[in-house]
Amino acid sequence: MTQTLHRADIDAMPSRYRAQFINSLSGFKSANLIGTADADGSTNLAMLSSVVHLGANPPLFAHVTRPTTVARHSLDNLQATGVYTYNHVSPKMLPAAHQAAAKYPRDVSEFDAVGLTASYVDKFAAPFVAESELSIGMRLVEVLPIKHNGTLLVIGEIAWVRCPQKVIEADGYVDIAELDAVAISGLDSYHPVLSGTRYGYPEPD
Amino acid sequence: MTQTLHRADIDAMPSRYRAQFINSLSGFKSANLIGTADADGSTNLAMLSSVVHLGANPPLFAHVTRPTTVARHSLDNLQATGVYTYNHVSPKMLPAAHQAAAKYPRDVSEFDAVGLTASYVDKFAAPFVAESELSIGMRLVEVLPIKHNGTLLVIGEIAWVRCPQKVIEADGYVDIAELDAVAISGLDSYHPVLSGTRYGYPEPD
Repeated sequence: MTQTLHRADIDAMPSRYRAQFINSLSGFKSANLIGTADADGSTNLAMLSSVVHLGANPPLFAHVTRPTTVARHSLDNLQATGVYTYNHVSPKMLPAAHQAAAKYPRDVSEFDAVGLTASYVDKFAAPFVAESELSIGMRLVEVLPIKHNGTLLVIGEIAWVRCPQKVIEADGYVDIAELDAVAISGLDSYHPVLSGTRYGYPEPD
Repeated sequence: MTQTLHRADIDAMPSRYRAQFINSLSGFKSANLIGTADADGSTNLAMLSSVVHLGANPPLFAHVTRPTTVARHSLDNLQATGVYTYNHVSPKMLPAAHQAAAKYPRDVSEFDAVGLTASYVDKFAAPFVAESELSIGMRLVEVLPIKHNGTLLVIGEIAWVRCPQKVIEADGYVDIAELDAVAISGLDSYHPVLSGTRYGYPEPD
């Protein structure tokens, strides 16, 4: 049976129940690990389900973060060094990737704690995850405050992309389903994704 | 073979190739139709792959739009009425949902053009898609300009949620895989998603 929950019903939910509920509603989310290092080169890794495409020219992505949670270490690092990486999560990287979302002390590298490998492209200061099949080097552009709830939109430009050549199709599309990338729903559910159907550019007729 | 593409390689790509490539990199994206109406009640429908969770209390989502493209009609409408809906896309709604992304003239309702049904919750001015299993009524909070590329972040609060009662689990998680929601990659690829594995709240030990 389909029901309609109104705002008063949502506001009356217990806090954790509401967090699970609201986090499920937007649809499937990307699963990325964000890799950073501080000015001394100490590394940090955290889960992100909010990476969003802003534009292709210049190539811009953004993600949402809170100023005061576990993601604070990543935020401090990317503001200190100006760089970070996004790394796709595949099924074989679970549950290690999810475990990187735990609240480790600042002096613990999640790479070591969860058993993933920090690697580097040239002299780029932020580590990528060696186990990821697709990693993106990002340069910070702007941290945009979202006044209504105190979150931050972290906007960056692509510096480099590392992925297997064979999954880039003739028209530039990257078949991430063939890379075994997973999708997230809610706060903690990781889903295998099947091959897609491409529909092409839609015309009004 | 894994390759590293640097920014100069990306900037040298032909425009359409680069758009396909960059749009593929962020990982899987949610598939939502945005439903709006103008001040006279004429309806509009458009595809969105950029809906992102901003917070659960208050319940806030955002999506990215361009001021001058096909999505302009949706933007004009939600700014005029202050409301809009997000509607999950299931396999049986394809290719109609993708076709809603075509550049129809302003006086054509994409609901009619692609064969989906506009329906309403109470006196809420924006239509939802009757064929969707999960629809969300949104009230506009802010349209935040992203200076670096001229896109806009449309931020809204949830007014109501319409979904089958049976997919809401005991802890509030909504099993959207059971609703047959699809995931998007790139500009035009739609993917079935399998049941997920839940890992729970991660602790540092």
